[in-house]
Amino acid sequence: MIFSIDRESLVDALISASRALSNKTPMPILTGVKLDVDYDKVTITTSNSDISMQVVISNSHLKVEKTGSHVIPGRFFIEIAKKIKAETVEITVVDDNLINIKAGQSDFTLNGMEKELYPEITFNTLNNPIILKDEELRSIIYQTNFATSVLENRPILTGVLFDINGHKLRAVATDSYRLSQKEIELNISNDLKQIVIPHRTLEELSRLLTSNEKIEMFIADNKVIFKHKNVMFQSRLLEGRFPETNKLIPTEFPVEISFNKNELIGAIERASLLYQGGKDNIVKLQLKDDGNAIITSHSSEIGKVIEEITPTHIECNGEFIIAFSAKYVMESLRVFESSDITMFFTGVVKPFIIKGELDEGMLQLVLPVRVE
Amino acid sequence: MIFSIDRESLVDALISASRALSNKTPMPILTGVKLDVDYDKVTITTSNSDISMQVVISNSHLKVEKTGSHVIPGRFFIEIAKKIKAETVEITVVDDNLINIKAGQSDFTLNGMEKELYPEITFNTLNNPIILKDEELRSIIYQTNFATSVLENRPILTGVLFDINGHKLRAVATDSYRLSQKEIELNISNDLKQIVIPHRTLEELSRLLTSNEKIEMFIADNKVIFKHKNVMFQSRLLEGRFPETNKLIPTEFPVEISFNKNELIGAIERASLLYQGGKDNIVKLQLKDDGNAIITSHSSEIGKVIEEITPTHIECNGEFIIAFSAKYVMESLRVFESSDITMFFTGVVKPFIIKGELDEGMLQLVLPVRVE
Repeated sequence: MIFSIDRESLVDALISASRALSNKTPMPILTGVKLDVDYDKVTITTSNSDISMQVVISNSHLKVEKTGSHVIPGRFFIEIAKKIKAETVEITVVDDNLINIKAGQSDFTLNGMEKELYPEITFNTLNNPIILKDEELRSIIYQTNFATSVLENRPILTGVLFDINGHKLRAVATDSYRLSQKEIELNISNDLKQIVIPHRTLEELSRLLTSNEKIEMFIADNKVIFKHKNVMFQSRLLEGRFPETNKLIPTEFPVEISFNKNELIGAIERASLLYQGGKDNIVKLQLKDDGNAIITSHSSEIGKVIEEITPTHIECNGEFIIAFSAKYVMESLRVFESSDITMFFTGVVKPFIIKGELDEGMLQLVLPVRVE
Repeated sequence: MIFSIDRESLVDALISASRALSNKTPMPILTGVKLDVDYDKVTITTSNSDISMQVVISNSHLKVEKTGSHVIPGRFFIEIAKKIKAETVEITVVDDNLINIKAGQSDFTLNGMEKELYPEITFNTLNNPIILKDEELRSIIYQTNFATSVLENRPILTGVLFDINGHKLRAVATDSYRLSQKEIELNISNDLKQIVIPHRTLEELSRLLTSNEKIEMFIADNKVIFKHKNVMFQSRLLEGRFPETNKLIPTEFPVEISFNKNELIGAIERASLLYQGGKDNIVKLQLKDDGNAIITSHSSEIGKVIEEITPTHIECNGEFIIAFSAKYVMESLRVFESSDITMFFTGVVKPFIIKGELDEGMLQLVLPVRVE
């Protein structure tokens, strides 16, 4: 294996591929980056137990003198590529498995890893991908992934459901105390498919979606493959049955209150200041006779807060008071693009939902806590 | 205690004072902020076991209706002041020791702490302070404090020696493997004084020195007080005898090599990449026949690096090779303002020193390691 490449392409490719690199792993070979050098392209492969990636470099700077495949210690290779100062990097394998990296005044020689131990990883893209725009998929992830469960007792809830049906894609995440749902229209009709993608996969995937390109999504039996420019990104799926969440979402709302989103976030944030680490920071929302609302919290140990806030719109007969987790509601509010949001209430112990005028297809649901 | 003040002054004062606030402490009262309200000023006091601070607010926005002293839970008070949205903050003590804080739409009531438990803290400023410019003291701290010891077995080395003698101030830090020394001229002659200021004190003090003001330094028996604008900053001193470091510094140098500082930092940084957490990253510097230098490192497990670098000036007869800790030398180099630095060598097992043309009065010393 002998080739040279511009440093910039190599660094970009390695930074992308590092998202799937293992740090600690029961398979030490996976701490390596696999290089497959052909005459017209270099393919970089990385994998951990959940995610695998393949990044292809193919440009006019690539000069291949000798093809070959080798596995290079990942962390060192990436740090070297980032830190060297030169336009061009020459990589040469000497003495069977010593990887020599020359760039400018720098001359590194790394012990190669045992390439025979690197597992066979296939990236089978089938026909008929689901096609999404970068920013569409980035929004879906941003607006749902935060609501997944962090507890491992119901593993299926640690991922986001992607429910594809005809022209519709519905993404749902819930930890059973709150739920986030986003629906978008697809340009092309697709067969019915339901998959649950792990939280971590979506987090890493989201970091790749920084351009205004398109991304193709291929669904196989137990995995999903995303194809994005020169990158293939593959993840395992969560197994099990995602709960039927549609029936949890109320449809009749005797009380509706609208707020300026940022004012509401500020008031809830201040009302939840007097809480000590570990305890849930519960606040109360109450409508007053004068048409104003107050958000309050109380801790006998520390003190109390009363935040007054003027709703932009109210529909309500009589008194209304409800208590909820400040953290859950603030996290929900922050993913809205609308500056004005509406909270829809069914009753003080029933889940309430939040919608925003400019956030078509998005719904946030939070379970209240009992008012003492 | 009843008064109102502009939020900005209150927040600025609290942020300054928070540098001495205790988080955990054997004296829980020290997690509180003490407020002493007079008709013309509000004094904020904070303290932990090492540092005490007093910040005075006195401006035309201050309106005092009733004087008094109270201790308010520090962390909550500071968070509230930061997060409230209003120009003016009204603070009123109700029911003996409930602290009510009103600002805009926000209404907080905090349980006050037992003010009788707050210790008496005196800030005695004597005559004849040593007067320094903000940026002078900031440089001294930046250029020496990093070289203090982190080990507690010789407590005196965890601080920086300030050695004042006539018109000279010499600051020295050493962990016994490297040493940093900075000398400046004082405008006014001072009596001989030697004090050792703890690392943490200097770190916090440095954060206050963001303006172009003057700072006054008062030295008492076992403490030092800094007076800076509306802030008094007091710290305990380290007890014991700081080692006589002058005799450690060589004066004859058969070998001198000058480098562009940033090129040298880059080469050492890259040469030290192939090291695994925990081990010391030792690199070798060697002069070659062709007038170039190489910096190398080698790990049988991972691989090796050769970095070539062209000195800007050499004085040397014959061969020269020396090995040192990459971390120590890089940390020393980073505090120089000069773009060109010179390394002065006495021998391969003797300490070497580094100086920079534009860094008058500064000297960095590093102990080499034996070349294998």
